[in-house]
Amino acid sequence: MHRMEVSENHPRYRSLTIRERMAELVRDGVVAETGLIAHGRGEAFDYLLGERTIPEAERAEKVAAALMLEAINPLISINGNVAALAPLEIIALAEAVPALMEVNLFHRSEERMRKVCDYMEGKGAIGILGRSPDARLEGIASGRALCTRRGLYSADAVLVPLEDGDRAEALVKAEKIVMAIDLNPLSRTSRTATVSIVDEVTRAIPNIVRFVGELKGRTSVRKELIDQFDNRANLISVGRRICENIRESLGEDKG
Amino acid sequence: MHRMEVSENHPRYRSLTIRERMAELVRDGVVAETGLIAHGRGEAFDYLLGERTIPEAERAEKVAAALMLEAINPLISINGNVAALAPLEIIALAEAVPALMEVNLFHRSEERMRKVCDYMEGKGAIGILGRSPDARLEGIASGRALCTRRGLYSADAVLVPLEDGDRAEALVKAEKIVMAIDLNPLSRTSRTATVSIVDEVTRAIPNIVRFVGELKGRTSVRKELIDQFDNRANLISVGRRICENIRESLGEDKG
Repeated sequence: MHRMEVSENHPRYRSLTIRERMAELVRDGVVAETGLIAHGRGEAFDYLLGERTIPEAERAEKVAAALMLEAINPLISINGNVAALAPLEIIALAEAVPALMEVNLFHRSEERMRKVCDYMEGKGAIGILGRSPDARLEGIASGRALCTRRGLYSADAVLVPLEDGDRAEALVKAEKIVMAIDLNPLSRTSRTATVSIVDEVTRAIPNIVRFVGELKGRTSVRKELIDQFDNRANLISVGRRICENIRESLGEDKG
Repeated sequence: MHRMEVSENHPRYRSLTIRERMAELVRDGVVAETGLIAHGRGEAFDYLLGERTIPEAERAEKVAAALMLEAINPLISINGNVAALAPLEIIALAEAVPALMEVNLFHRSEERMRKVCDYMEGKGAIGILGRSPDARLEGIASGRALCTRRGLYSADAVLVPLEDGDRAEALVKAEKIVMAIDLNPLSRTSRTATVSIVDEVTRAIPNIVRFVGELKGRTSVRKELIDQFDNRANLISVGRRICENIRESLGEDKG
């Protein structure tokens, strides 16, 4: 429809290519239109991070890996944007932990649920939950409360890449350990989560997979990592780093 | 299609409503899918500004009003997002100065050009340029170089709300005065423009209209405003303000 004419030399070639792919998946019904707006918000914050995994994010990713390994029923929540951006990365993480995968949509419809599940299965995912919800999360509106008893409802630790604030809060209230991947360090999701990973999903998830490999069988190391982690202090440090980047980008001297 | 169920009490009611309207206009062909992503980037930066017109933005808006009144051929450039977000505001500004209006799309197609022009005319715009390009801007790729001789090509001062970096640079190289409305103070557009208004379009444009009213017939005041304005210093000040907001949001003490 709106084909791009952007050369590989364009300074923003990678993000332009991803944008085009996301736009295509809107036409296919996997990504919601408002999912594109959410993607844009993420892009802006990623820009402020310098489009790289900052040390604070890496620390949170390691703690998230430890928490997933310590959990009895770890689960990865998948929405349209996550499926579009990082399907293979999610599958690799689910296998590495191992963890269940459940599709949970902000803009829920039977059709989109089916499309996102089909899309993930087309990428090789096995045992995706979510098509037949038989439980509800408390404290959020209708469609977004639906989940499966075997999956999200029973999970004790949930990785929520790109989750909205309402659902993140409901998960925390349900006493689950919530690991958020959210590029906005100020979002309600980031401020509510047990562990807030301020990183882009296609960078964050492979890092978590790597840490899962490193931490397998090392229970005492995992417990130490978890004990020593201070999510609020880590977020404040992210904020400082963003400010440094802003000052540098505007050519202002540090001070 | 994906109808929202969000109450007016939701903390982000206004932005959620705008998102839904933008998504509808994608289905109507006025807004490009990637325009939604651009809107999301803007949302993120607006969030960091506190979703209000900061003093630096107001200063830039006043200077932009002065420059439009001083210009021989002032013009307002319109793309799909601007048409979707602020059609009436743009028309009011074009009448107040008076300035020409020309549609210029990043994702240009004959169909979308027609749709955006029709949309603006449906809102009451008269004399919208752009349907029949007969000139080219130098230094940018094919479709995006097209413009009208009577409009953008001949303009000496151009207001570009939500412009991409390539075109902003091309306009500056063509020795035009470029007034950008861009929520990202670090974007190439903001850093290239003569005057960078870091504000949301539906707030920025009514402010410019108001300043146009105040500055009509006051040539010496206008010249003084223009002379005293330092765009780079103003942007640095915007950056500082964003950092203060980040620190406050994260509950960190100022320092």
